[in-house]
Amino acid sequence: MDAKLQGYIDKLNKLNFKEMYEGDFFLTWEKTDDELEAVWTVADALRYMRENNISTKVFESGLGISLFRDNSTRTRFSFASACNLLGLEVQDLDEGKSQIAHGETVRETANMISFMADVIGIRDDMYIGKGNKYMHDVVDAVTEGHKDGILEQKPTLVNLQCDIDHPTQCMADMLHIIHEFGGVENLKGKKLAMTWAYSPSYGKPLSVPQGVIGLMTRMGMEVVLAHPEGYEVMPEVEEVAKKNAEKSGGSFRRTNDMADAFKDADIVYPKSWAPFAAMEKRTNLYAEGDSEGIKALEKELLAQNANHKDWACTEELMKTTKDGKALYLHCLPADITGVSCETGEVDASVFDRYREPLYKEASFKPYVIAAMIFLAKFENPAEILKKLDERAEARKFN
Amino acid sequence: MDAKLQGYIDKLNKLNFKEMYEGDFFLTWEKTDDELEAVWTVADALRYMRENNISTKVFESGLGISLFRDNSTRTRFSFASACNLLGLEVQDLDEGKSQIAHGETVRETANMISFMADVIGIRDDMYIGKGNKYMHDVVDAVTEGHKDGILEQKPTLVNLQCDIDHPTQCMADMLHIIHEFGGVENLKGKKLAMTWAYSPSYGKPLSVPQGVIGLMTRMGMEVVLAHPEGYEVMPEVEEVAKKNAEKSGGSFRRTNDMADAFKDADIVYPKSWAPFAAMEKRTNLYAEGDSEGIKALEKELLAQNANHKDWACTEELMKTTKDGKALYLHCLPADITGVSCETGEVDASVFDRYREPLYKEASFKPYVIAAMIFLAKFENPAEILKKLDERAEARKFN
Amino acid sequence: MDAKLQGYIDKLNKLNFKEMYEGDFFLTWEKTDDELEAVWTVADALRYMRENNISTKVFESGLGISLFRDNSTRTRFSFASACNLLGLEVQDLDEGKSQIAHGETVRETANMISFMADVIGIRDDMYIGKGNKYMHDVVDAVTEGHKDGILEQKPTLVNLQCDIDHPTQCMADMLHIIHEFGGVENLKGKKLAMTWAYSPSYGKPLSVPQGVIGLMTRMGMEVVLAHPEGYEVMPEVEEVAKKNAEKSGGSFRRTNDMADAFKDADIVYPKSWAPFAAMEKRTNLYAEGDSEGIKALEKELLAQNANHKDWACTEELMKTTKDGKALYLHCLPADITGVSCETGEVDASVFDRYREPLYKEASFKPYVIAAMIFLAKFENPAEILKKLDERAEARKFN
Repeated sequence: MDAKLQGYIDKLNKLNFKEMYEGDFFLTWEKTDDELEAVWTVADALRYMRENNISTKVFESGLGISLFRDNSTRTRFSFASACNLLGLEVQDLDEGKSQIAHGETVRETANMISFMADVIGIRDDMYIGKGNKYMHDVVDAVTEGHKDGILEQKPTLVNLQCDIDHPTQCMADMLHIIHEFGGVENLKGKKLAMTWAYSPSYGKPLSVPQGVIGLMTRMGMEVVLAHPEGYEVMPEVEEVAKKNAEKSGGSFRRTNDMADAFKDADIVYPKSWAPFAAMEKRTNLYAEGDSEGIKALEKELLAQNANHKDWACTEELMKTTKDGKALYLHCLPADITGVSCETGEVDASVFDRYREPLYKEASFKPYVIAAMIFLAKFENPAEILKKLDERAEARKFN
Repeated sequence: MDAKLQGYIDKLNKLNFKEMYEGDFFLTWEKTDDELEAVWTVADALRYMRENNISTKVFESGLGISLFRDNSTRTRFSFASACNLLGLEVQDLDEGKSQIAHGETVRETANMISFMADVIGIRDDMYIGKGNKYMHDVVDAVTEGHKDGILEQKPTLVNLQCDIDHPTQCMADMLHIIHEFGGVENLKGKKLAMTWAYSPSYGKPLSVPQGVIGLMTRMGMEVVLAHPEGYEVMPEVEEVAKKNAEKSGGSFRRTNDMADAFKDADIVYPKSWAPFAAMEKRTNLYAEGDSEGIKALEKELLAQNANHKDWACTEELMKTTKDGKALYLHCLPADITGVSCETGEVDASVFDRYREPLYKEASFKPYVIAAMIFLAKFENPAEILKKLDERAEARKFN
Repeated sequence: MDAKLQGYIDKLNKLNFKEMYEGDFFLTWEKTDDELEAVWTVADALRYMRENNISTKVFESGLGISLFRDNSTRTRFSFASACNLLGLEVQDLDEGKSQIAHGETVRETANMISFMADVIGIRDDMYIGKGNKYMHDVVDAVTEGHKDGILEQKPTLVNLQCDIDHPTQCMADMLHIIHEFGGVENLKGKKLAMTWAYSPSYGKPLSVPQGVIGLMTRMGMEVVLAHPEGYEVMPEVEEVAKKNAEKSGGSFRRTNDMADAFKDADIVYPKSWAPFAAMEKRTNLYAEGDSEGIKALEKELLAQNANHKDWACTEELMKTTKDGKALYLHCLPADITGVSCETGEVDASVFDRYREPLYKEASFKPYVIAAMIFLAKFENPAEILKKLDERAEARKFN
């Protein structure tokens, strides 16, 4: 066997991730370090095999159900790519064309769509306290359905973004960092600035900053969360970040000063998000059907937002980072000053300079998703990789 | 070979279903008893193979076209699952995105979408006298297209619900009954109550009650159709039911008394539907574009409907069935009193007790659809099953 | 090996099309004669193999991205069929569900959807000067993405209709002609009439007449473009047609007299289109957001259109063609007098007589698209065909 692939397999054999088999992926902080490392290792292995024209199709048939409660291009295609890579056909549950509803029917619909589903990917990030909860309801339903003999297999859930975390994004971000810095072992002591940045379209989900501080604090990095006053994220996730940092020998702190965060940073992640408290309020207003209240809240948030146009990733700020060359991250699409909007999250020249690494960052997502599925579906993933290599079926005929 | 699989093959070898090859599936009563039995047998065999990780992928490429003229989750996913199980990729003909129209163009569009289609699944149940007719137009078109050398293969049509029958649902219902009662041979003399039940959403299709009385009367059962006066189904289908009952040594009768139907019943199927005569009237009003007339009719039907809230599958009624434990059936979703609506078709406690069997009932549908396709596509299905077993390709790599 | 298949392979081996490898398909006149011939040859070979149950699945996994900026049935299903035939799963980029936009983001989105895309098919024909340009932007983006290591493979672009050409349609039309006339070598001197015809739905794209005169002039045919005054096509494409005719030893001329074009024609292609100049004006009005101007233009065009109801493919005109039996072509759907509209492009009796060949004409499109993909993806397509034949995997299990 090829040495590189053997390397991935050897690495897997040293990790303990046996709890992932038949499991699900909700939040990164519900996973052990070994489990996260297993995801990155399998992602790298799958990518390596695809690049070397070795088919990683492990399913002759089977469905990958996607449920997007918000418009999506990147995540939709990443999920479709991941399923396709493993041999699963994507079937979209378009709620406009169906009637998946609250209460009883979540349980029912989850079973009705899963007779031949090996994975369910859900994006549900709009309402605080709802998305992650909904995913758990779905998993509970299909777990019971499988136990009762209704479903031949238990589909694994992949959280494609919820109100709390965006694990496929953050795991892809981290895999990108690992590649850029030459390994997890090189991250200790590196400074990462997760900072708020102004965008004219206020109201962006909190899942990215929360996911980033919940994950990046685990590698011994110095993680700084920066935002204007009033843009706090979920306090529970800050708690997670603090504990992670303690355990990993890194640090976590919050500041209201963007320059402070950028100063000597090795990695910067400037991005707009909505205040957690406001999102919670909005969720309640929606629940009450209070459209006047929602309008008033939006007006208020836009006004608040407009006070912080100086929170931008400018060339000047970038110069203050480590050697002036911090790795710039973004989940995309970014609001680029003078390009996609008048005043945005990032200077056009900064964005342009980092375009290639940004696209590379995104390119890890399909593999991360595929790895999550792979690890949930096979009891011995290392052995399966070995057998796929021995099978030596070409992805593209030759 | 495994004894169980051999059993299915032996059974198939005793049945005569050679007319199914290159055929279509419109109505159950157009099929012989042997043909129906072949569907159930192949469905069981395909399920058994999937459960034992034997791939039943019989197509390396090919499309399964789906055309849904009404929202659908269950049937959509069942069809997608069935196609996927056999190796066909689903391609949805979304009429919003296309222009499939009346007259000449049905013939044309049917051919244009079928160059590589092995199956076409259509749901068209809204207008009396239209859905089944439309399916025949499609089949006539592709049959001629195949004869003329335009289509390499004749796609087989699977009726996913029309104005007359809902064969994939009723065949799945029956396969569930067969499993619950331990074989077709045990159904003789069993009492089945197909009864109307109140739902606040009046206007549900007639295809389920019609399909049930048209199919269940063939097994020697005592089938009772119960509904309030004015909720008659298509008279032609009642005729079918009567003839079936005579031939099978069972019985068929109609009553306007729900209690009468439930009394000592072995199986109950309480469910709302719209009166046939009203649906016929509505179809004509739509054809005339008489929106005032439609509104008036809807008002009238809602008023009529509200008179029958006492038609519900209550705990009290369930106690009157055979040993108080009749098998409760429903095509789902059910209108559950106090859960999905204030007053509905069934008590919440009854529904809850039967949830597991209800989901199992639904789980047969993908396999029934796959069996219909399989039987239309292979001249010698028994031999193909045998060869698939010998091929021994894993559905999930191992 | 089968002699017929060997014939296709032998033919390929005589042609020079090495520039097609890793290339794209924008316009037919950007391709050499050998390259076009290679498309037809591979299309015939793929069809032959499918008809003989030899799988041509060359991808174990991979996506075919489709982007339709206009409703479409025929092309959508042709593209889906072509992808499926080669083993690619279609993933539709529904712009309603995403946010692919202008400027910077074309580059970004093109990369974000292409991580595992082997082909991108785009239909964008509405605005003059936009569609083809957009396709080039996409190709430039993914070419760079591939070079930068972001995309493992460079997806090939297939132009599914742009503002200038409709190459998959015209290549299918031509393959139909070749089959009807028994070979390219028999086309020299044949007269083809590409003529305008009246349809009540004015405003149809110019890509078909432009594509036809840009392609059919290459085979030594006498091509006549006929239309009422004011219905000119893009002058650049007329220039292409003229040069083609000179080079191929055929001819190209324009007339405002439909009878002149039909007289002794071997092939007729009567079809409505909008005047180029008007479409250009409309594009500008849209760009300016001038909805009053658009309404005024539409009114004007409809009035102009109504002056030419005598431009129809009647039985009388058909009698004036070569032996009264010219081959009648149309890209479908046609506007048929007395069937789909009161007065249309063609008499119902003419259309009916040519229905079978018309459907056959359409049936070549999936194979033409598949051939375009095949030729872009394999360096030695002839060898791949040979190996597929040796692999002898059944498309439909047997």
